[in-house]
Amino acid sequence: MGLNLDLVGKKTDALVHGYGWKDVALYALGVGAKLPAELDFLFEASGPKVLPTFAVVPSFRAMATVVAQLGADMAMVVHGEQAIRLHRPIPPSGSFSTVAEVKGIYDKGKGALIVVEAATADDAGQPVFDNTFSIFVRGAGGFGGERGPDAVSAEPPEGRDADFTVRERTSAEQAALYRLSGDLNPLHIAPALAKSVGFERPILHGLCTYGFAGRALLQAACGGDPARLRSFGARFSAPVLPGDELTTQGWQIAPGRWVLRVTTQDGKAVLTHSVAEVSA
Amino acid sequence: MGLNLDLVGKKTDALVHGYGWKDVALYALGVGAKLPAELDFLFEASGPKVLPTFAVVPSFRAMATVVAQLGADMAMVVHGEQAIRLHRPIPPSGSFSTVAEVKGIYDKGKGALIVVEAATADDAGQPVFDNTFSIFVRGAGGFGGERGPDAVSAEPPEGRDADFTVRERTSAEQAALYRLSGDLNPLHIAPALAKSVGFERPILHGLCTYGFAGRALLQAACGGDPARLRSFGARFSAPVLPGDELTTQGWQIAPGRWVLRVTTQDGKAVLTHSVAEVSA
Repeated sequence: MGLNLDLVGKKTDALVHGYGWKDVALYALGVGAKLPAELDFLFEASGPKVLPTFAVVPSFRAMATVVAQLGADMAMVVHGEQAIRLHRPIPPSGSFSTVAEVKGIYDKGKGALIVVEAATADDAGQPVFDNTFSIFVRGAGGFGGERGPDAVSAEPPEGRDADFTVRERTSAEQAALYRLSGDLNPLHIAPALAKSVGFERPILHGLCTYGFAGRALLQAACGGDPARLRSFGARFSAPVLPGDELTTQGWQIAPGRWVLRVTTQDGKAVLTHSVAEVSA
Repeated sequence: MGLNLDLVGKKTDALVHGYGWKDVALYALGVGAKLPAELDFLFEASGPKVLPTFAVVPSFRAMATVVAQLGADMAMVVHGEQAIRLHRPIPPSGSFSTVAEVKGIYDKGKGALIVVEAATADDAGQPVFDNTFSIFVRGAGGFGGERGPDAVSAEPPEGRDADFTVRERTSAEQAALYRLSGDLNPLHIAPALAKSVGFERPILHGLCTYGFAGRALLQAACGGDPARLRSFGARFSAPVLPGDELTTQGWQIAPGRWVLRVTTQDGKAVLTHSVAEVSA
């Protein structure tokens, strides 16, 4: 099935997304926030504080609106890469407008990679955060398009132990909970559909793994302070199943610059090519 | 502090509560629904099906409105007993109106028991379910009031093994998740507050334990069919802490009539005086 290549360079109208503290807490639980350590991210009397990776939530619909116009089979769509850039801490409630633009549709052979940039501003027009959503459409490659830019090299330094290691088990219901924050792709909950496109059972959202990694990064490299995380990018290299154990490791490769990797219990690297910038 | 005894016999205005399938799924996860067994209660393509104990959610605000007028210290308020009567299966979305009435304020010595009946109807005025919320206000007894009616005797038959036993562990975040369905009493999340009123740490909502027991009852005694559960009442006899393991046992004492009990890992009975009616 051919993708609608004419979308490249087109911008969406500004899409407004309002949210409140319950959405913030629901997201935090969806990406595995734990008690008592992360109470401030769950309890409204503490704001609550907002996980920086929540940035993917208010911008999700703008991205999804673009992707829906691609003509892709949603069962074949998986998240390829994600990057966020934070201009300031995310407030516990708000009404934000997002403009999304398709930056490129690349031919990766086995699939197509759609890169969508989404800029989100508050109701005074001030930028809050930017997202780059890179969506992989399995089986949609081979259309003779460009391969696109090479990935940023972000390998952990060879032979050096990680500066932090955080190990957490996802729950069997992790995807069912995460999807209540907005990504309702049935690939993450419908067993027959998941099987029909080659997965053993419904897979976890790449952005859920991303949230687990972001929490580890926040606690281990930012002293738990969301205001210190400036940017965080990652590739979703292999599928994760709900119930898998995620081990997030981080290496500080320069002052304020971290490389991350997430592996599952069998040693498979599931989140790679990951760099984060942290302010002092 | 004296309670406002004049509330007895007063009815609230009809309070309207709208909900959608995400609220249904969020509630199911809040009371521990598991995958893959309970997919139909989490996935919108299956309705989703609605757990019968969800009946406490659309009626909660009407009850809370009454309780707020009591003049009680909310940190001293715990759920005492709960009963639901279902007139038909609960739809996956709806807009229901509830009228609540204080039936009695009883003097239990150590505390006061407030019994609130709430009748919920759909927008055509047809009854959907009724709730009896019995709220215990610790430290508010001794005002010289009536003790109220004796509890229904509902002891498991002596010397007989349970007809079903379901064991499940709650998560450390169970109350934080459950409260997103509407009961925001900080007793269930704020450590200092919980300690100040004599609990080791924030306790689980009685209605969350009730939901776990209701799921066990539904699977084990109703073949998983919400339409078969006619009524379910229970007393919350001792506090449960998030992370506790709940063992729900059921005894069929007559055709379609069940007695239930929930204990924690240390053998403490936390849900007792529980009878359920199941249709064939």
